[in-house]
Amino acid sequence: MQTLPRLILASGSPRRRELLAQAGILFDVETFDVYETVGAELARDVEDHPDQVYRIPMELSRRKALAGAAAYENRWILGADTVVCYDGEILGKPADAAEALDMLCLLSGRVHTVITAVTLLRRQGKALQERAFYEETRVEMYETDRKLLQAYIQTGEPMDKAGAYGIQGRGAILVRRIEGDYNNVVGLPLARVYRELDALCREGAAIAGQSEYLEPGRPG
Amino acid sequence: MQTLPRLILASGSPRRRELLAQAGILFDVETFDVYETVGAELARDVEDHPDQVYRIPMELSRRKALAGAAAYENRWILGADTVVCYDGEILGKPADAAEALDMLCLLSGRVHTVITAVTLLRRQGKALQERAFYEETRVEMYETDRKLLQAYIQTGEPMDKAGAYGIQGRGAILVRRIEGDYNNVVGLPLARVYRELDALCREGAAIAGQSEYLEPGRPG
Repeated sequence: MQTLPRLILASGSPRRRELLAQAGILFDVETFDVYETVGAELARDVEDHPDQVYRIPMELSRRKALAGAAAYENRWILGADTVVCYDGEILGKPADAAEALDMLCLLSGRVHTVITAVTLLRRQGKALQERAFYEETRVEMYETDRKLLQAYIQTGEPMDKAGAYGIQGRGAILVRRIEGDYNNVVGLPLARVYRELDALCREGAAIAGQSEYLEPGRPG
Repeated sequence: MQTLPRLILASGSPRRRELLAQAGILFDVETFDVYETVGAELARDVEDHPDQVYRIPMELSRRKALAGAAAYENRWILGADTVVCYDGEILGKPADAAEALDMLCLLSGRVHTVITAVTLLRRQGKALQERAFYEETRVEMYETDRKLLQAYIQTGEPMDKAGAYGIQGRGAILVRRIEGDYNNVVGLPLARVYRELDALCREGAAIAGQSEYLEPGRPG
């Protein structure tokens, strides 16, 4: 709708692709190998201050965007990282069906949070332009009996999902209500991404305009 | 996952179809012509008591399910109706681009509610089994300038949508956060539908089991 720059999505997630396409944002996909363990200092900080858990996906989203910016100049790179948190712990992807059941039993009947951090980054020579943000969504799960959870795990859907469920798939039937952005739980705070990109473009236009005004004799 | 009955979806909405399919609920689609204006008494009641606005989609979802039950015996019919409410008023589908812009300007930067009512109904001879419920979701919109709203209207998406936006489409970029069930805003409170159907089946099984127990000599 607006003329936004064509992004490079530094993520292999098909869900993030679908979301960008849903908003009509143009993009290319490039995946980069990024070390997904955070440093000991940050890990310790977050252990001491569980309310700072957002710093972990912020760090990982930045690594992904930086890997993209190393490879591409003059393009906006989007790096994103999603974590599912319960009681100060980050729940990763389940290793097997037993771990998926443990996670789903833990979340059943309770409220957890999903944080997606996004880094937008553009390199021009050695200079980096950057905008980073995160959104947090509270997710309340229905209390669900083990039999239904086991049937859900049988579908295979939980195995590649942090927290062992996909809200955009059959996992929808586990979720009673959310508070916050839905797409953030799917993997990208789409509205916020659109608006931040739009703001970056306006700022870019404003800077270009101002520069022309200050240097009127400069060739166009 | 569970063995739920194969429904008849008494709705032409492609979004409701997609949601049932997402949860793995089997269904056939049949649309029925239903008079979509509620009686004067109910309209007056709701005007006097805006907190009872849910009674209108409840009534309309029941009409749709009844039309289905008149045509089909021994099948669970799902009727649903969604309304978008702001400040005690129901916002319908916009008649044209100007009305769409009025609606979107009204909702911009504010909170409105979306109510979807569902009636599940099965006729056996002249007897009706019925379960009806509704879910309410609060939707907070970003403050959005007219230029972007006009560009959104240009995509054509608002024209067949109550409230002039589709949260599952490009309209996602207008929504800051929700409180409640997301799929309810799309058009069907999917998790609740699944759980109510599951409960109906368990009750059915319990009644069948009890009946067998009470009449042990009855042929199977």
